[in-house]
Amino acid sequence: MASERDPLLPVHGEGPESPSRRNWKTWIKHGILLILVLSTVIFFYFFSSHKSKGTNEKPKFVIMMVSDGMGPGSLSMTRSFVETLNDKEGYRLPLDEHLIGSSRTRSSSSLITDSAAGATAFSCANKTYNGAVGVLDNEKPCGTILEAAKEAGYLTGIVVTSRVTDATPASFSAHAANRFMQDLIAEYQVGMGPLGRSVDLLFGGGLCSFLPKSTYRSCRSDNLDLLKYARKKEGFQILLNRTDFDELSNAQLPLLGLFSDYHLSYDIDYQPEVQPKLSEMVETALDVLLNATNEDTSKGFFLLIEGSRIDMASHNNDPIAHVYEVMEYNRAFEIASAFVEKNGGSLISTSDHETGGLTVGRQVSKKYPEYLWKPQVLSLALHSIEYLASAIVNHNQNTLLPYIEQFVLPAIGIPDPNPKQIHDIYVARHNIFNLINVLSDIVSVEAQIGWTTHGHTAVDVNVYGVGEVTEHLRGNMENIEIGQFMEIYLNVSLSDVTEKLKDAPIHGAPDRPSLVETSFSDRLVGFGADLF
Amino acid sequence: MASERDPLLPVHGEGPESPSRRNWKTWIKHGILLILVLSTVIFFYFFSSHKSKGTNEKPKFVIMMVSDGMGPGSLSMTRSFVETLNDKEGYRLPLDEHLIGSSRTRSSSSLITDSAAGATAFSCANKTYNGAVGVLDNEKPCGTILEAAKEAGYLTGIVVTSRVTDATPASFSAHAANRFMQDLIAEYQVGMGPLGRSVDLLFGGGLCSFLPKSTYRSCRSDNLDLLKYARKKEGFQILLNRTDFDELSNAQLPLLGLFSDYHLSYDIDYQPEVQPKLSEMVETALDVLLNATNEDTSKGFFLLIEGSRIDMASHNNDPIAHVYEVMEYNRAFEIASAFVEKNGGSLISTSDHETGGLTVGRQVSKKYPEYLWKPQVLSLALHSIEYLASAIVNHNQNTLLPYIEQFVLPAIGIPDPNPKQIHDIYVARHNIFNLINVLSDIVSVEAQIGWTTHGHTAVDVNVYGVGEVTEHLRGNMENIEIGQFMEIYLNVSLSDVTEKLKDAPIHGAPDRPSLVETSFSDRLVGFGADLF
Repeated sequence: MASERDPLLPVHGEGPESPSRRNWKTWIKHGILLILVLSTVIFFYFFSSHKSKGTNEKPKFVIMMVSDGMGPGSLSMTRSFVETLNDKEGYRLPLDEHLIGSSRTRSSSSLITDSAAGATAFSCANKTYNGAVGVLDNEKPCGTILEAAKEAGYLTGIVVTSRVTDATPASFSAHAANRFMQDLIAEYQVGMGPLGRSVDLLFGGGLCSFLPKSTYRSCRSDNLDLLKYARKKEGFQILLNRTDFDELSNAQLPLLGLFSDYHLSYDIDYQPEVQPKLSEMVETALDVLLNATNEDTSKGFFLLIEGSRIDMASHNNDPIAHVYEVMEYNRAFEIASAFVEKNGGSLISTSDHETGGLTVGRQVSKKYPEYLWKPQVLSLALHSIEYLASAIVNHNQNTLLPYIEQFVLPAIGIPDPNPKQIHDIYVARHNIFNLINVLSDIVSVEAQIGWTTHGHTAVDVNVYGVGEVTEHLRGNMENIEIGQFMEIYLNVSLSDVTEKLKDAPIHGAPDRPSLVETSFSDRLVGFGADLF
Repeated sequence: MASERDPLLPVHGEGPESPSRRNWKTWIKHGILLILVLSTVIFFYFFSSHKSKGTNEKPKFVIMMVSDGMGPGSLSMTRSFVETLNDKEGYRLPLDEHLIGSSRTRSSSSLITDSAAGATAFSCANKTYNGAVGVLDNEKPCGTILEAAKEAGYLTGIVVTSRVTDATPASFSAHAANRFMQDLIAEYQVGMGPLGRSVDLLFGGGLCSFLPKSTYRSCRSDNLDLLKYARKKEGFQILLNRTDFDELSNAQLPLLGLFSDYHLSYDIDYQPEVQPKLSEMVETALDVLLNATNEDTSKGFFLLIEGSRIDMASHNNDPIAHVYEVMEYNRAFEIASAFVEKNGGSLISTSDHETGGLTVGRQVSKKYPEYLWKPQVLSLALHSIEYLASAIVNHNQNTLLPYIEQFVLPAIGIPDPNPKQIHDIYVARHNIFNLINVLSDIVSVEAQIGWTTHGHTAVDVNVYGVGEVTEHLRGNMENIEIGQFMEIYLNVSLSDVTEKLKDAPIHGAPDRPSLVETSFSDRLVGFGADLF
């Protein structure tokens, strides 16, 4: 009956729709809606079940990238730097395509976090005090996402450009009441901790913590030979230089690559024959872990990647080293991003905090500032400030003035230095810290880049995501929410690991009565920057 | 036949699924998929047509909010400030709930934009040179989103806390080759431009540009009486003070509210009996525009809201005025957000650029910096630095020392000042600019807040969204993409307006041969900050 009406004709004077018309429309509407719902249910029930069974079996990959100390200013600075380098406008960083939000970074003890509390927020999904490595406010260990992943059958890896015992990698793979307990941290990393070995692949610097005190290159306070332990007890394959890295074929896990006694070199000072770059290590790590996933386990893996020295460049207020570190981090991100786009999984990239109070714009006189800054200065630079400061200290003092004028200043992007710049550097020549400060200031003034501290700041940092994470994490978040996401996504339990850590004795560290012992390293290395 | 099989049983040795089984599965799959698709199509065709006809008629609302000069550091600073003020942790700003991305801010002439080029990027969806108000690199006017909305039948409004002739509001409602041509900008705003009147509602400061030179409070260079023109020729209802604003009932458009000769006061110095606050103006503007939408047009409206003086506080490096401006901006955002959540539409909030190189963290000695900053200093403060500098200049010089010690320093959060602080202020007492610098530095050092310039920086700024915009704008974007979004969303044409502007004569400005005439105002007001 209803179908006899012309639906476009109004029904005699009863307003836009008569009740009877509304009735048949309602019936048909409900009928079709029912068919719609039913067929949807049937469709997904029958034909997605196979697929979803597949999904359960499909390996899961979580890649967590930490751009240590990279704040919002770094992005705009590096973008314009790359444009100047290539003389081409409109460049976007690989990261730019994947911004999903920002992270609030404070720790439990301060509005400004350090890297240990910042990394523990990710790894344990909990706020803790500055300096805490995988322990909470009660100074008791908390299960980390890396450990929980390992316990659940995933493979695990860590790739960094600092010492592997530095705060960020340590907070995923060790437990120490204080970040300076690097001896203990290294012991955890080779499997001496209560859980045994949690890390399947470990690439970075920091060999010195793995060598017994009696040897020349050691920085340990005891005679434990962790390389020997790693090889003999845990079956680690060990790589100690570029050649080992290049000759790696048919790699088996566990795999330990320590390519420097302390940190790896800054990217701008990189010597291809000595060490691998971050992006190279990431590429290899992903290959090895994916092969092992296909061969040994169907679970997948958790991989931590850190652009560790972005932070250290900023501690030195060195914009040159900084932009090159950020560029290399972006290359590594591009590789990780391509991996997730091909193989599935979740890539999360964020920073633990901002370092340096970096701002791209700086007032260089009492006059009202011009609105500009000069990436061309950075684009001419050839070495990190740390490298050049060290070169000055080691240079023949008799030929130092021409060396400063003809080599050092051009190498920081100033081909035509003025006498004051030469004088200031010369005066600081005996002290590497003073030299770092003077050189950093000269290049930053010239490029009109601002810094407000040699420490950290409280600004929110960007969060980037590729893959499934983008459906779950968005907007402004607390840093611990990233840890919470990884726990849920990998379907593991941090608290179960915390429970295990509580009861178990500490393997291989008989001289350490408890994890909460606070012992400071008495070594400052890497010009102090690595300690913060 | 197929239904007789147990689907869990494998089919005799032919692998997980036999071809025949795959066949019937494929057929059923396709059949159900067909029903699914067909019923979806039918459902939406029949029963969404009424609704979608409604959607076409439903008014569209675009609220564009500009937090002038607010960079990433402002958020974390204001959040911790509010927590300290309320002695309660875990506070999130209203903005925090709606972060959708970040914006790259450079202009066509520099890596660091000014507010005019920054606002023209939003209004004309085009990059232009620093200082350009609604004109492009060729110095020819470009149609703005506000003008295009008006031409298309939408209502339009502007609510700011600066002079309404200042760069941001000007770049939506006027065309001038240089932002200092404030006389011309005011003429546009009352409808003397080639398009006639484009603004239906205009709230802010800047009365002086609307008064003839012959009158005491004018800052015009000619004798045009724009208030008279607005009232007589365009039928504007005019509000000139708090009482007018409060007594506004049954408001009719067009409506012009100029509540101060120059800028409105900083929020922290706000006197309720003198001027309305940003949030109050926004509330009233939304009411008036919504009523007019319901009564006069079905189109909806475009409203520009600017937290103008966030920027000016940062130009002064004044963290006190800054946090209060950001708080008030958040209140205004909350109101706009509730409006869009109730009535539909799109709310976009972003900054044109960062100002001051603000970082929340500052090294205050040669020693390695502690990781902290002190919001409690700001929470004790009572006035803006500008207010106090002015108070010192105007104070009886004989009683100035106790005044500085007992009033000024406690009013910037320092109840127990040291002799050096008192001395530094006293020495600067004759010059308001020096006073602003000294006072700002004292409070910023005390709170451990860093600044690197009195100008702007190139850092990306956050983008926030509520409503339909969140489905279209995400991630890191160019500032002009926001203008492009608004043009598409409102279904208007900027280029059509540009075309009209090219041919039409300039109404009411017979002494101005062309828009590209560059005439600088000879007045510095608001202690210089408003000019940048």
